[in-house]
Amino acid sequence: MLGKRRRLALLAEGRFTPFEAKTAVGVLRYRPDQVAAVIDSTRAGRSAGECAGVGGAIPVVADVAAAAARGADSLAIGIAPQGGGLPEAWRATLRDALTRGWDVLSGLHVFLADDTELAGIAARSGARILDLRRPPERRTVAAARAAEVDALVALTVGSDCNVGKMTAALEVTRELERRGARAAFVATGQTGMMIAEGGVAVDAVVSDFAAGAIEDLVVAAARGADVVVVEGQGALHHPGYSGVTLALIAGACPRALILCHHAGRDHIRSAEGAKHPIPIPPLAELRRAYETAAAWVCPARVTGVALNTLELDERTARAACDAAARELSLPATDPVRFGAGPLAEAIAAFRGRMHAPHA
Amino acid sequence: MLGKRRRLALLAEGRFTPFEAKTAVGVLRYRPDQVAAVIDSTRAGRSAGECAGVGGAIPVVADVAAAAARGADSLAIGIAPQGGGLPEAWRATLRDALTRGWDVLSGLHVFLADDTELAGIAARSGARILDLRRPPERRTVAAARAAEVDALVALTVGSDCNVGKMTAALEVTRELERRGARAAFVATGQTGMMIAEGGVAVDAVVSDFAAGAIEDLVVAAARGADVVVVEGQGALHHPGYSGVTLALIAGACPRALILCHHAGRDHIRSAEGAKHPIPIPPLAELRRAYETAAAWVCPARVTGVALNTLELDERTARAACDAAARELSLPATDPVRFGAGPLAEAIAAFRGRMHAPHA
Repeated sequence: MLGKRRRLALLAEGRFTPFEAKTAVGVLRYRPDQVAAVIDSTRAGRSAGECAGVGGAIPVVADVAAAAARGADSLAIGIAPQGGGLPEAWRATLRDALTRGWDVLSGLHVFLADDTELAGIAARSGARILDLRRPPERRTVAAARAAEVDALVALTVGSDCNVGKMTAALEVTRELERRGARAAFVATGQTGMMIAEGGVAVDAVVSDFAAGAIEDLVVAAARGADVVVVEGQGALHHPGYSGVTLALIAGACPRALILCHHAGRDHIRSAEGAKHPIPIPPLAELRRAYETAAAWVCPARVTGVALNTLELDERTARAACDAAARELSLPATDPVRFGAGPLAEAIAAFRGRMHAPHA
Repeated sequence: MLGKRRRLALLAEGRFTPFEAKTAVGVLRYRPDQVAAVIDSTRAGRSAGECAGVGGAIPVVADVAAAAARGADSLAIGIAPQGGGLPEAWRATLRDALTRGWDVLSGLHVFLADDTELAGIAARSGARILDLRRPPERRTVAAARAAEVDALVALTVGSDCNVGKMTAALEVTRELERRGARAAFVATGQTGMMIAEGGVAVDAVVSDFAAGAIEDLVVAAARGADVVVVEGQGALHHPGYSGVTLALIAGACPRALILCHHAGRDHIRSAEGAKHPIPIPPLAELRRAYETAAAWVCPARVTGVALNTLELDERTARAACDAAARELSLPATDPVRFGAGPLAEAIAAFRGRMHAPHA
């Protein structure tokens, strides 16, 4: 992971639940072989599977020392506080890890390598601090170059933050590969970067260059792929993050969009401090919004719906997928629960039409 | 200007024309009393009025020494290279200015105060380097707080970069003040900041906090104003900058939009490196796009059109305004050439309807 094989301790102090510990859950789902333990003193003694539904028997422990006893050799911050600062309570944990010579992987907006104390400890112990949100050196202003690639570019978009855009993109990529396509996943957030060994945390790029950073990634990924699946961010209806969402759309120039939604969520959850709850519009209206926004630079179609049905029982989950499919006349699935087959199939069919002689 | 009264030398080397030297032209139009000279060795000996149509007899000179002879005591970078880096050819000029103890005002994306050589010279001479694009310390995630203010928030939006969004906002603000309203101008780019003594260069803010920075500014400005006029940036149809544009819309939560366009421009000029020219849609389609995007967070109406008719003769300019007014059934004017009266009137009327008892 990020340069070498690791035995990670995932820091999720006080918040190791499926919805709060987004980064930890993502890494546990897609890179469980590189996780030694999860740190959450309020849940120590339980297993990752019990707390978060992923990671099986991987133990939850109280602190760095206990994670070391389980063989950990690196620390990754597994929760993303809104605003992206470093909670003071974590400083002792980071100090402890760095003193042991552990690399620290961080997706905070605040760069740990710029913290004099932490950088000093790392320098003495030989540990590395990997700030995943550090933007790329190269500063590109996007110019719709991604619209010119031969690969089909697909982007996951959604009704809110934390509805499953990264997961849907990863599952569709895997499913396309399983079917023999050359599919490339483009990570655009810190969790995706840990899983994919690359990418850019687009929300941390200076606004003028956010679309350009994505354009660079997509153009590079398209060189070796038939399909490029880009991890989406934010939501067009989110007052704080819609700019990031549109920058992603304009930079990636997708032709296919996968609409992601958390079944049953009717208000935007991720807008802390909003005076009134912000309603999530119906799926058909979301589709229209995303297709409208895409067309400003490069026209795109929603080709399928990915529902996160984590909180529903199996029957209700199936019914939710069926209802979404009927509402949009499109394939709809929970890619984790029921597989990404229908979404991958729709992407492959869309690609076929794009390349048909008389399309 | 930015802390004190200045006698500026405006650096516009090789590019002192109305379209290339956007910052220089803006400062000359709205703060001519604080400009001693313009530096452009290729046009030395002429006047600002001859070269750029603003600034009257203010002289164009070859270098810092010649500007000093005209009484300059500060240097402002008056052109904005795409990408925002420091052209190596300017280094000698900056060195010269800083050695004399002149403050340097810069709107480059690259921060001059972080340049070891330049910072060293400034430290020795007592000069200050003011990097206008340095983002605010405070990092806010927007949550539609600007939708709650009592003041009417108006935002200028446009068909491309460099079509007159800042100018329209400044002219409307002035005209509203002339009519007795308490109007506040919110600067969102480096030129506006030089003119307004504050604001934030939104395109330089990390994407997650771009809308939040605007929200903070609008909420603060609304405390003492009936109308807050926010300077727009970018364009929804621009592949590189549309994210910034949407962040501004979501952060400012405007109720009124002023649509700005450069008469006769039919392709986006500011997308260097685009393989194909990107057409600018008709005004009616632009209106629809901006009203659609605003409604994702806070519904808004386009209340008027500001045309930049610089390249047209008087009669053609009038005809262009009349055609735009007919096309949208809205007031349309070139606010510099014909005054911002119709735009200010429409804003005032809109505010009246907002506050009418049975609106």
